[in-house]
Amino acid sequence: MKKILVLGAGLSASSLIRYLLQHSQTYNWQVRVVDQSLDLVKKKLNGHPNGVALSFNALEKHERMPEIKTADLVISMLPARFHAEVAKDCLEAKKNLITPSYISPEMKALDDDAKAAGVLFMNEIGVDPGIDHMSAMKIIDEIREDGGEITSFKSYCGGLIAPESDNNPWHYKFTWNPRNVVLAGQATAQYIDRGQYKFIPYGQVFSRIEKVEVAGAGTFEGYANRDSLSYRTVYGLDNIPTIFRGTLRGEGYCAAWNVFVQLGMTDDTYTIANSEELTPRMFLNTFLRYDTTMTIEEKFDSVLRQYGLQSAEMFTYLGLFDDSKVIGLKDASPAQLLEAILVEKWKLEPNDKDMLVMAHVFEYEKNGKHYEVNSSMVNIGEDQVYTSMSNTVGLPLAICAKLMLNGVITDTGVHIPTAKHVYEPILRELATMGIRFSEKERELEVFPVK
Amino acid sequence: MKKILVLGAGLSASSLIRYLLQHSQTYNWQVRVVDQSLDLVKKKLNGHPNGVALSFNALEKHERMPEIKTADLVISMLPARFHAEVAKDCLEAKKNLITPSYISPEMKALDDDAKAAGVLFMNEIGVDPGIDHMSAMKIIDEIREDGGEITSFKSYCGGLIAPESDNNPWHYKFTWNPRNVVLAGQATAQYIDRGQYKFIPYGQVFSRIEKVEVAGAGTFEGYANRDSLSYRTVYGLDNIPTIFRGTLRGEGYCAAWNVFVQLGMTDDTYTIANSEELTPRMFLNTFLRYDTTMTIEEKFDSVLRQYGLQSAEMFTYLGLFDDSKVIGLKDASPAQLLEAILVEKWKLEPNDKDMLVMAHVFEYEKNGKHYEVNSSMVNIGEDQVYTSMSNTVGLPLAICAKLMLNGVITDTGVHIPTAKHVYEPILRELATMGIRFSEKERELEVFPVK
Repeated sequence: MKKILVLGAGLSASSLIRYLLQHSQTYNWQVRVVDQSLDLVKKKLNGHPNGVALSFNALEKHERMPEIKTADLVISMLPARFHAEVAKDCLEAKKNLITPSYISPEMKALDDDAKAAGVLFMNEIGVDPGIDHMSAMKIIDEIREDGGEITSFKSYCGGLIAPESDNNPWHYKFTWNPRNVVLAGQATAQYIDRGQYKFIPYGQVFSRIEKVEVAGAGTFEGYANRDSLSYRTVYGLDNIPTIFRGTLRGEGYCAAWNVFVQLGMTDDTYTIANSEELTPRMFLNTFLRYDTTMTIEEKFDSVLRQYGLQSAEMFTYLGLFDDSKVIGLKDASPAQLLEAILVEKWKLEPNDKDMLVMAHVFEYEKNGKHYEVNSSMVNIGEDQVYTSMSNTVGLPLAICAKLMLNGVITDTGVHIPTAKHVYEPILRELATMGIRFSEKERELEVFPVK
Repeated sequence: MKKILVLGAGLSASSLIRYLLQHSQTYNWQVRVVDQSLDLVKKKLNGHPNGVALSFNALEKHERMPEIKTADLVISMLPARFHAEVAKDCLEAKKNLITPSYISPEMKALDDDAKAAGVLFMNEIGVDPGIDHMSAMKIIDEIREDGGEITSFKSYCGGLIAPESDNNPWHYKFTWNPRNVVLAGQATAQYIDRGQYKFIPYGQVFSRIEKVEVAGAGTFEGYANRDSLSYRTVYGLDNIPTIFRGTLRGEGYCAAWNVFVQLGMTDDTYTIANSEELTPRMFLNTFLRYDTTMTIEEKFDSVLRQYGLQSAEMFTYLGLFDDSKVIGLKDASPAQLLEAILVEKWKLEPNDKDMLVMAHVFEYEKNGKHYEVNSSMVNIGEDQVYTSMSNTVGLPLAICAKLMLNGVITDTGVHIPTAKHVYEPILRELATMGIRFSEKERELEVFPVK
């Protein structure tokens, strides 16, 4: 019986654990899941005979090491900063490891040692990073094999609310870490456009947006991610003239969010002295000029007009003008106070479902002609446990685990899933589970560049 | 003969050293000046019989300690981060110390030890901090002694170019560290206005400005400094409803500078990959949308209009559209590239003079009536050695040194010059040297606050 050790049983581990259990009898696996909360593990294992619930502090080496030693494969769903430590343990015990997270410099440094030890550390194999890598590489390899030269690659991803659960003017609810949503875009976005480096500072990120049409899901707004440039090397596109990665939001979101950015309400670099006394209305007024001749609504309206908005409806919806009760956070930053206001209004209702949308737009040249390839995926969650986020993170991890245990993937070293023998079987199986890309290609008329 | 040890003979030490030498025969002082460059020291001492030129690395404890031990008073003009180390040496050798810089937490921590050792470490006694403390405290003490209650304190300071040397559309040249000018305002400005905390994020600092009239010098723009709040405690005004500190610039500067801020051209958080290849024109274009239907001038004009400017004249003056030669900095941040462009255009011509402007505006209440007190100072440099910056930094330090050596100031511990027995004689002597505040008071009509 092969032992799979899953470190961490949080939100994004649900679909992973379910898949492993579903396949555990076929492949004779024992799925050993650790979390600080034994109840949580038991709930996720749901009494499955091949599941073993463990409770210890997996962040401590001496607690996790005995389990790693007896495992055939380790999957780390711990906070990303712990992956490199776990990897060192796996090196010591000569075990394969899978993580959904970005390769850190510490993880990267283990590549030679992992190769020497004959073990594989597969990373960035959830969603953004993960499915984005695999679905992009599939197109990139196809174009290349066909003799085309890729001239532009734009890629967008968004964790959103399903249309059937979309009932607020922001077209957004928190389906993922709220803090990351509030702090999004705070570093200058860097990309390259037809050979010219372009930089978008935080103050422009939510106004310099692109409209993105996604087949079967409608129109979205894409704002620039911090880092598009490093993907050139990741995808073997070092000399590509245009590469851009963005995040998707519903129409109207970015222009409204921009108001928070411009007023400084997303600032996380200082705390407000009297933050525990502030109502949403007082919090808002903190960022508006002192002017006793105007009400707060009038002052805010003039800010809205300055940034091209006609109505305060989206802000009224958030209760931003409410003076009836304090937000109630002591020594809080503006970002923390804003998050507290949003969490109330953007929480999922019991039957709400989330949605993950991904879209790649490639341009390539072949025999003097220009083509565009669109590849997009829209996935809706099952419920609030097997969310789209949980499925799109957990299922590629789980399939990769199966392929590694079954000897289909036998690489060694530190990897991400950009190799064809890795992404091909994973994408094929994901498609059978509703995580499916639809592709469209068309020839482009090309206008000469001035 | 009393020995004064001056550590560092840089730009801002010129007026200090001149004053000490001028008074050295009257008071029987030996002025011992150390710098890495012996030539620099000799130039500053100008062969004066009471001057002793020393050359060693004053940043090294073992090199400076023998000199500190034989000194009667130490004045540190080293970079601010070294003051606390020098202070520890002075504690060990039981010597008094003067520095022009802000009290660091490490310096502050020495207060008890300094008191126990019977020595005085006087800090923040140049300009901003220094003359601002002294001139503000003079008014604050006067209002209080007269039974008034201060309700508002706004204070502004600017290192500018003298009107006779002002011949560019920015009304600005570099008279001080260019890097600090480029990075100014990058942290959220915090102040309090009629009891309400107010925060101005970087993106608003240069548009939410105030007009400041200074008697005898004209109209300026004041943008908010990062920290106004901590001055409440410094000046004993903990419950003051309004306190604001700002930096002065000539009219038009802030609106134009705001364009650099909004485009991200002052960003110092990343480097541009191909920075050594960029001309000013290419550098500018890096922050503009890709759009082949418009020239760079047209794209930039649309940005200017967005931020309320009618003409690109100020930017043309800087050579921002120039494509004839590269800026020539490798691995440079946007802020570094912008600085390189500005340094060319905002450099002082041989006969240019600098100007320091300071303005305090107080409001106070007494017997049910409201008053405003304006106190302002305009000082123009003598030449490019004895600049206004050098005079306003160096002379208060030098006078303080005299008062300490003559036994007029006998405090112990870590201090700034907010006590009357310290600021009074210093301000009085500064006035005889042309660093003079003019004050105006008027009764205010008060309108009820809504």
